[in-house]
Amino acid sequence: MEEVTGAQLIAESLKSQKVEYMFGIVGVPIIEVAMAAQAAGIRYVGMRNEQAACYAASAVGYLTGRPGACLVVSGPGLIHALGGMANANVNCWPVVVIGGSSDQNQETAGAFQEFPQVEACRLYSKFSARPSSLEAIPSVVEKAVRTSMYGRPGACYVDIAGDMVNAKVDRSKVRVLSCCPTPPVSVADQGAITEAISVLKEAKRPLVIIGKGAAYGRAETALREFVEMSGLPFLPTPMGKGVLPDDHPNCVAAARSRALLQADVVLLLGARLNWMLHFGLPPRFNPDVKIIQVDLCAEEMGNNVRPAVALLGDINAIVTQLLERVHEDGWKYSSDTEWWSALKDKIAANAKISKALALQSTVPMNYYTVFHHVSQLLPPDCIIVSEGANTMDIGRTMLNNYLPRHRLDAGTFGTMGVGLGFAIAAATVEKSENSKGQRIVCVEGDSAFGFSGMEVETMCRYNLPVVIIVVNNNGIYSGVDPETWKEMGKASSLKWFPAFYQL
Amino acid sequence: MEEVTGAQLIAESLKSQKVEYMFGIVGVPIIEVAMAAQAAGIRYVGMRNEQAACYAASAVGYLTGRPGACLVVSGPGLIHALGGMANANVNCWPVVVIGGSSDQNQETAGAFQEFPQVEACRLYSKFSARPSSLEAIPSVVEKAVRTSMYGRPGACYVDIAGDMVNAKVDRSKVRVLSCCPTPPVSVADQGAITEAISVLKEAKRPLVIIGKGAAYGRAETALREFVEMSGLPFLPTPMGKGVLPDDHPNCVAAARSRALLQADVVLLLGARLNWMLHFGLPPRFNPDVKIIQVDLCAEEMGNNVRPAVALLGDINAIVTQLLERVHEDGWKYSSDTEWWSALKDKIAANAKISKALALQSTVPMNYYTVFHHVSQLLPPDCIIVSEGANTMDIGRTMLNNYLPRHRLDAGTFGTMGVGLGFAIAAATVEKSENSKGQRIVCVEGDSAFGFSGMEVETMCRYNLPVVIIVVNNNGIYSGVDPETWKEMGKASSLKWFPAFYQL
Amino acid sequence: MEEVTGAQLIAESLKSQKVEYMFGIVGVPIIEVAMAAQAAGIRYVGMRNEQAACYAASAVGYLTGRPGACLVVSGPGLIHALGGMANANVNCWPVVVIGGSSDQNQETAGAFQEFPQVEACRLYSKFSARPSSLEAIPSVVEKAVRTSMYGRPGACYVDIAGDMVNAKVDRSKVRVLSCCPTPPVSVADQGAITEAISVLKEAKRPLVIIGKGAAYGRAETALREFVEMSGLPFLPTPMGKGVLPDDHPNCVAAARSRALLQADVVLLLGARLNWMLHFGLPPRFNPDVKIIQVDLCAEEMGNNVRPAVALLGDINAIVTQLLERVHEDGWKYSSDTEWWSALKDKIAANAKISKALALQSTVPMNYYTVFHHVSQLLPPDCIIVSEGANTMDIGRTMLNNYLPRHRLDAGTFGTMGVGLGFAIAAATVEKSENSKGQRIVCVEGDSAFGFSGMEVETMCRYNLPVVIIVVNNNGIYSGVDPETWKEMGKASSLKWFPAFYQL
Amino acid sequence: MEEVTGAQLIAESLKSQKVEYMFGIVGVPIIEVAMAAQAAGIRYVGMRNEQAACYAASAVGYLTGRPGACLVVSGPGLIHALGGMANANVNCWPVVVIGGSSDQNQETAGAFQEFPQVEACRLYSKFSARPSSLEAIPSVVEKAVRTSMYGRPGACYVDIAGDMVNAKVDRSKVRVLSCCPTPPVSVADQGAITEAISVLKEAKRPLVIIGKGAAYGRAETALREFVEMSGLPFLPTPMGKGVLPDDHPNCVAAARSRALLQADVVLLLGARLNWMLHFGLPPRFNPDVKIIQVDLCAEEMGNNVRPAVALLGDINAIVTQLLERVHEDGWKYSSDTEWWSALKDKIAANAKISKALALQSTVPMNYYTVFHHVSQLLPPDCIIVSEGANTMDIGRTMLNNYLPRHRLDAGTFGTMGVGLGFAIAAATVEKSENSKGQRIVCVEGDSAFGFSGMEVETMCRYNLPVVIIVVNNNGIYSGVDPETWKEMGKASSLKWFPAFYQL
Repeated sequence: MEEVTGAQLIAESLKSQKVEYMFGIVGVPIIEVAMAAQAAGIRYVGMRNEQAACYAASAVGYLTGRPGACLVVSGPGLIHALGGMANANVNCWPVVVIGGSSDQNQETAGAFQEFPQVEACRLYSKFSARPSSLEAIPSVVEKAVRTSMYGRPGACYVDIAGDMVNAKVDRSKVRVLSCCPTPPVSVADQGAITEAISVLKEAKRPLVIIGKGAAYGRAETALREFVEMSGLPFLPTPMGKGVLPDDHPNCVAAARSRALLQADVVLLLGARLNWMLHFGLPPRFNPDVKIIQVDLCAEEMGNNVRPAVALLGDINAIVTQLLERVHEDGWKYSSDTEWWSALKDKIAANAKISKALALQSTVPMNYYTVFHHVSQLLPPDCIIVSEGANTMDIGRTMLNNYLPRHRLDAGTFGTMGVGLGFAIAAATVEKSENSKGQRIVCVEGDSAFGFSGMEVETMCRYNLPVVIIVVNNNGIYSGVDPETWKEMGKASSLKWFPAFYQL
Repeated sequence: MEEVTGAQLIAESLKSQKVEYMFGIVGVPIIEVAMAAQAAGIRYVGMRNEQAACYAASAVGYLTGRPGACLVVSGPGLIHALGGMANANVNCWPVVVIGGSSDQNQETAGAFQEFPQVEACRLYSKFSARPSSLEAIPSVVEKAVRTSMYGRPGACYVDIAGDMVNAKVDRSKVRVLSCCPTPPVSVADQGAITEAISVLKEAKRPLVIIGKGAAYGRAETALREFVEMSGLPFLPTPMGKGVLPDDHPNCVAAARSRALLQADVVLLLGARLNWMLHFGLPPRFNPDVKIIQVDLCAEEMGNNVRPAVALLGDINAIVTQLLERVHEDGWKYSSDTEWWSALKDKIAANAKISKALALQSTVPMNYYTVFHHVSQLLPPDCIIVSEGANTMDIGRTMLNNYLPRHRLDAGTFGTMGVGLGFAIAAATVEKSENSKGQRIVCVEGDSAFGFSGMEVETMCRYNLPVVIIVVNNNGIYSGVDPETWKEMGKASSLKWFPAFYQL
Repeated sequence: MEEVTGAQLIAESLKSQKVEYMFGIVGVPIIEVAMAAQAAGIRYVGMRNEQAACYAASAVGYLTGRPGACLVVSGPGLIHALGGMANANVNCWPVVVIGGSSDQNQETAGAFQEFPQVEACRLYSKFSARPSSLEAIPSVVEKAVRTSMYGRPGACYVDIAGDMVNAKVDRSKVRVLSCCPTPPVSVADQGAITEAISVLKEAKRPLVIIGKGAAYGRAETALREFVEMSGLPFLPTPMGKGVLPDDHPNCVAAARSRALLQADVVLLLGARLNWMLHFGLPPRFNPDVKIIQVDLCAEEMGNNVRPAVALLGDINAIVTQLLERVHEDGWKYSSDTEWWSALKDKIAANAKISKALALQSTVPMNYYTVFHHVSQLLPPDCIIVSEGANTMDIGRTMLNNYLPRHRLDAGTFGTMGVGLGFAIAAATVEKSENSKGQRIVCVEGDSAFGFSGMEVETMCRYNLPVVIIVVNNNGIYSGVDPETWKEMGKASSLKWFPAFYQL
Repeated sequence: MEEVTGAQLIAESLKSQKVEYMFGIVGVPIIEVAMAAQAAGIRYVGMRNEQAACYAASAVGYLTGRPGACLVVSGPGLIHALGGMANANVNCWPVVVIGGSSDQNQETAGAFQEFPQVEACRLYSKFSARPSSLEAIPSVVEKAVRTSMYGRPGACYVDIAGDMVNAKVDRSKVRVLSCCPTPPVSVADQGAITEAISVLKEAKRPLVIIGKGAAYGRAETALREFVEMSGLPFLPTPMGKGVLPDDHPNCVAAARSRALLQADVVLLLGARLNWMLHFGLPPRFNPDVKIIQVDLCAEEMGNNVRPAVALLGDINAIVTQLLERVHEDGWKYSSDTEWWSALKDKIAANAKISKALALQSTVPMNYYTVFHHVSQLLPPDCIIVSEGANTMDIGRTMLNNYLPRHRLDAGTFGTMGVGLGFAIAAATVEKSENSKGQRIVCVEGDSAFGFSGMEVETMCRYNLPVVIIVVNNNGIYSGVDPETWKEMGKASSLKWFPAFYQL
């Protein structure tokens, strides 16, 4: 009779489900889980704050398509990880958080770090549960991993009571579960595809918008063929950058505002009509724009704008469906249209302005000068991690991506603090899976850097190939000495400008 | 007609309620709240992570008896602050968190950082609300401040919709609310006092336990007189240290285990019978111990152990009631008892062991040597902030406190990451309120330091008189290289010992 | 070795804590709990809907000062009971709900009626927990019962997993807990009492408001002596009626609006300044009114109105403190004041109007005529249960109470559906504890009756002495036939008046 | 300028979204919403308890494919409706609850029935929100209706603040939203279809399980053709009954246990492997059974059993895909197999037993006799509503359904109390949409009837063609008189058998 502990069951179950990376901070009661995870062949990275650990784990999900694990202690350890769960959910990235909790026999008595953890994760997760016994661990872990990936991806939480970590059970009594397969794929109804193609063909000013859903869905190959065959202009969202290269001739990112405003048909691929796309509404969109909405989440269909056609299903499969039709029909949007001319003129005009700014030699440097020089140094296959306010916004327009899933930023939830965790995750994955190992470059605002700056130590400790560029634009708001305020008079007459920026 | 903005109303309402300190990180939509707060005379401290900001704000509540404010942006900003709210609640400290949220007209549409914030704070607060209009701000802020202090103190949350921050209203339409007074005081029933005194007099092995509730309740003067007049031995909980000086002759902290185990009557002053006091149960307590429980929270009475006498009310008032009786009776527990002898013998024996350890000169130094030398350098009136595992635990026994509310540590929730935020709060309060300004000394484990290490920058930026001592005991768990694991064999044969400690 | 089941432990623990009544509906998995409860000597009443069962259980708490139990099955059974928990919490009445839940080994698998029950009760309870083992049952039940009564009373929830109901444990391994005592009593600070007396003495138009907190606190004896000795006019809230008899010469209920509007000092005894008292604010209160607020909940102090004096503690004890002072001083508010004259004039004028209405002989009868005749038939010691809109409101002014805790109505939460459950509870308690057994009279609006009308069967089945009077005022809104609407035109021109009332 | 009120906007928005039925109880603050709904052409049914109202509204969603509305007052009104929301969610039925709430300017002040309603509905809904302004009402209502139907259907909640009900806005400022279309349809990947067909062809003992998802998905026509063309045996779940007639020659319901236990391949159509199907696991299923899982919810795939093939998408579309293949191949499962023989033998044997029981003439009648006679009286197109324990379970086997969506019962959540609400909904829909108007027959256990028995009055008031059959099996558990218990001795020796049953 071989016995296994709860810690081993957690670890082995994660490994069985092909969870290959774990980020966390050990302590009572989950030290043994970290040990068992490594024994099971999971790569463990010890971080400095659960907040950054959970951001790291979630980036693994986006980069690899299977969730990373975040391992945290009870109470505050778990609460520190909630930001990462929320960010993963809003970004639609899979992540699995494993949290130790109090010993069950001390519950309600004021146990060490006692907290209703499963309940606390409800608002931040698709699935939150505690296995009721050691025997239940494999199925709960499998369900957490599976649920994090299936449907719209997101965060899942598994709680492990402190006393279960070292409790033992006869291994033969535990039902083993093999790895859950990649998510089931559904495709759009052929009628809807026909309709979509017909709407596209009638478009005068068509536009393809490529969201990070297309990146997550690994639609790059089909999508490139579709864009090139159809001749349509495309615009990536921030993390949609790189699905097709930013320097692709059909990319109209440099004419973003005009493209959004004047398009009469938008093929929306794995992007939501939320704040990042101005809700799809005037004054930033044409009020009569026809949206062909491609999404795997039925509930997303029609949010803010009623789509002309809703194509429900896997994005790669649907792009392939569209591609087949374009192939069959031999249809192509002419490059010789007013729309293409207008877009190209705008691109040229904007490029000129950027260039002029980039060549300014004032001190302190302006953002464009900074990013111009940075961009010249970046290897084309590097992964760019970025966060901040102006730093991220202007940097996005100046730093090109050439490969899918090679940009990680504050994302849909606009989260400050993700940068170093994301970089650690990217570097760890690259180191493990890519013998060459791409470079990771963090471009951080000086305020943004502060949220997780201590993780530089983690990077050093693991010897990770990360370069961090902090753009010092005086973004740390410190307020003013109270005495000064008194002299300055009424607050309403004051404004705070982060006025200086230096590399 | 004078108009005021939502930001100003928030700021002025906090100031009216004598909230004097605000810690936060600005951004959309609460930049103007930070500005208005300073204009209103609130001292604003710009931190590097909302997590540390909220820990800082909560420490102000403990140190001053009125809540500090924590100011955060929407979504992730607020979620990062939940740890501070949880820690405040578990520690029973007042704190008020002000969170900006999305513009109301974008709700349900995927607004920037949209999140159900009032709901998210429910589990972490005594009161969580959004003012429904500008006119409602003063009363909601007043209720938040008042609720944070009245009854058992804790965290309160006030949400401010983004569009309300700069919205304006005629000042004359806003009902002004004066500062809510200090909490109402209730005292114990005289009959219960009589009973308590009678139980005390019959005790063979009495013990007074002084919790941080006694520190928060400013019971130090009455309590010192009571202890000295009654001749009773006392034991402080970690943050109960300093209510009476650690070198007071009646302090039996150095015989803690024996005192707890053998006491037949315990006068429990503002401490809970939770994990920190081993639930008041065997094997760490005498099964027949009689507890005289003094607490202001009725629901606390009888948790885990049925008290022999329950004295419900303000701790300072009740100690004063007890003191009056002892005065009247002239009763004193004899210093010439077996109990005192046993305690003193144990104290002497333990002191000898500590001293021997402290004088060891091995390299790396052991904890006792470290703390022995540190303790000799500490000014007696310094505020000690401490977190970590062994660092905190052993440090607590070696570093004396001589003044109430001069120790801040991981507390009842055992929270890692509180250290630098607490130190910033203590230094800011000292700087403002104490011309002399006591020194703040942080004693941190090396892992603990990492949770908020970036806040060193905050300390520097504000020129705060904080000394940080990091005890490098190799407490950062990094796991092992996967290749190494394979060679090492089965996880069950491995143990992780943080083996080296160096100053 | 004697074994006990989980069901027995639940039952015996409740009985040990003097929970004497249980209302519920049996089914999987809690049939055995109902059986064991009866075997333990708890009186079990089988109801027709968990909604009514929980209202019944909560009324027991108000009537007896110890919580009733409500026993429900998993999932929908528990959800049906949430209204009762909410109502108990808002009314500040103790109640303990015991809910069976799914078998633990089927959790997350789609078990029968699987639901996160402990979490679901959070918003509706002071304490919500599942014992982690059979051994933990007595302490969790004790904590639930104690927490429901201590501090501000309210609802508590105990979950019992289906598989634990019939699981067995050696009785000797279960720690037995004796009955938790009545709540600890605290009293007001003497300084605050002095201040309160001084404010009262300076009052020109004083008013005592008696809330249901005074009824729950069994303050009737002290309060009667205080009112009579001080000569102050008093006004009961709806369930404050009967603490002193409605026909007491100092009762100014018949001049309620004037009393509230013109009082310059209000002694507020166990009542909250919420919607029932118009928030204590203009236009219904004098803007300069001084409130002497007596409450056992510190957080209540200052809600909506800043009290002139806050007297924190047990209401009976504080009334006794006030009474002692009045005794010592011999002070009495003169009956020969303008205030008394004004109140008495108003009372007389209102009585005249009511009488005129009561003597009308139109058909259908008006409310006053109905209640006039009903009131002449009511035994003075009957318990009146009432709910509805006009039925309850007008009935309250026409039907007198002469004894404390003899009125049960929709209460602070304005809950429709409480009537028959309350009546069943009152009748059950009376039958058990009062050999004579007072009559229970339900006065129900016809719509209100429908919420729990099926419980008439329960009353019959248990042969309970309840009289139900349904006031048929056509209060059941059925809408209009769609065809009719079309003819009637625009909705905005329509009003719905429940126009006919008949006994 | 035409003005509209909040009530009108709610009503018109619901009507625009083709919400045709509303069930509720009026009161402050939503009286005007009920009026406006009728003015807008929505059929309003005034019920006796919000509990039953919400069950009724949810049944409309199942019967018509568009949600019914449930209209409730604040606080307890909404809480009473939570059971209906939970039941709808668990059954995957669309429903929209509209709840009035307190006036916004009284929030936090103790308003009438103040409760955090949006938050309270979170655990019971897919979407829960309050429109932030009158202008926001149409989009929030549209989102609620759409979300309730799209993806896996469920409950949605829309809150309307009391003061918004009668507030007015210029109609021209309100963005009008047209009716959201029926849910987008996705189909299975052709590769997966091929795989499924191949697994089916290799099956020795195949079985089709038809869930209520197939009924909701209106798959009856395609499914009938598929079953008949493929020659496969099928088994309906309780509400899957009638998708194909119960007397269809391929129906093996009468050999349910054997079919489940011995099938080697199961084609699972819109049914979940939860408690109702014994989790798809031994001992009730073959451990090696291959499941072809057809579901529109990706997260359902793999729950409890890893499917051999997962067909993700619309059930009707996927059955059509399968049917096309079967057509193409001309494949048919032979009727001349051991499996068919075994199933038919078992069916015959069970029929014999039932018949024998049905013909018994003992008094009281047994269930089989009762249902035998009932079944002979039922018109074949009647809608059967059923709830109870044995009544529902045995009734299900004895009372045939011949048409889809003609059976409504306690469902996946096993909810007692749904019966009369469901019947009222079915009768209302039939009356409106079906000139002939099918008969509704409720078959209720005597205990089950009590949960909503008062709604008989509603049926009468609206003259609804409902027949209620109460099977009196002494199912109301009343406990035993306490004196009796004492004599009967130990609880453990007692059992409660509901022993008598009479029509």
